Amino acid sequence: MKITDRKTEIINVAAKLFKEKGYSAVTMRDIAQAMDIKAASLYNHIKSKQEILVLIIIEIAEEFTSVIDEILASDETTIQKIERVIQLHIDITLRNSEALACLNNDWMHLTDDDLIYFIKMREDYEESFRKIIKSGIANGEIKNLNIEVIIFSTLSTLRTLYIWYGKKKTIKPEILKANMIQVLLNGIV
Amino acid sequence: MKITDRKTEIINVAAKLFKEKGYSAVTMRDIAQAMDIKAASLYNHIKSKQEILVLIIIEIAEEFTSVIDEILASDETTIQKIERVIQLHIDITLRNSEALACLNNDWMHLTDDDLIYFIKMREDYEESFRKIIKSGIANGEIKNLNIEVIIFSTLSTLRTLYIWYGKKKTIKPEILKANMIQVLLNGIV
Repeated sequence: MKITDRKTEIINVAAKLFKEKGYSAVTMRDIAQAMDIKAASLYNHIKSKQEILVLIIIEIAEEFTSVIDEILASDETTIQKIERVIQLHIDITLRNSEALACLNNDWMHLTDDDLIYFIKMREDYEESFRKIIKSGIANGEIKNLNIEVIIFSTLSTLRTLYIWYGKKKTIKPEILKANMIQVLLNGIV
Repeated sequence: MKITDRKTEIINVAAKLFKEKGYSAVTMRDIAQAMDIKAASLYNHIKSKQEILVLIIIEIAEEFTSVIDEILASDETTIQKIERVIQLHIDITLRNSEALACLNNDWMHLTDDDLIYFIKMREDYEESFRKIIKSGIANGEIKNLNIEVIIFSTLSTLRTLYIWYGKKKTIKPEILKANMIQVLLNGIV
């Protein structure tokens, strides 16, 4: 997707409003007001609230998809691959936690093909992560534990990172990354 | 809180509806309809949707609070204590995932003293868990990693268990527990 500067601004303002008030409660008028422009000007750039939602969510979902595909295809060790997945979630959390909140809270407001496309990307992401873990179990890098428990434990933490890290900005990103890798890979005991 | 059988039935039906449609969208009429009784009879037992929400959320929050207080006060090892916290979350997930969904999705609809009481219990719960981890770090049972990262990683997984386990009922509770303890305490590598 090619996005103009003005569109990027609209997306950022809208994502913030969606997070604060919930997608359903926000109107195009609210978005225009927050940008200090007329609602009519807003419609010059974007045709609906739905279009904004699609731009926010699909862009992030495509980034997750393309990076994990690249990680999966690489010839790194499983541990290196998982470290890169952790890095990916931290990077996007630091860069765009509002869009992540929108993806997690509001994806169900997507419609038709966008909804199907999003769900497909989400399932493919989990499947790519499953393949990484599976090959790690097969080559002995990862313990032979229930694979679904491993996937759930890891992804539940990474996917909710944006909620928690928003309140804990005192932890530096590099400290966060190093500790997250330790806790998720090697445990706390 | 002392709850009659009829109240328990109302609570269970309501929790299910709240999960399906969202708290705001459910009416007292919907609850009466789902129970196949007249709305007027419903009001003989319960005075408002708000009262139902309080009964659902506060009961579960009080259970979490009293069990973790008991765990914290016990003279078990830190590892045994964490295992019991994991067990607590699995037990409540198996027994009452609808109420957990309600607690997680709808707590912000509590009002006044109920909201204050709930937030206090939630903070106290985290604080008790923090004390368990802290004393484990102090006595060398737990690795000296960033304590906030440990707390977030563990609780984010345990608190979202009900979402995931609802879809993965094929994993037996004892397998779930054993694997969860392994993954959260000893890691996957």
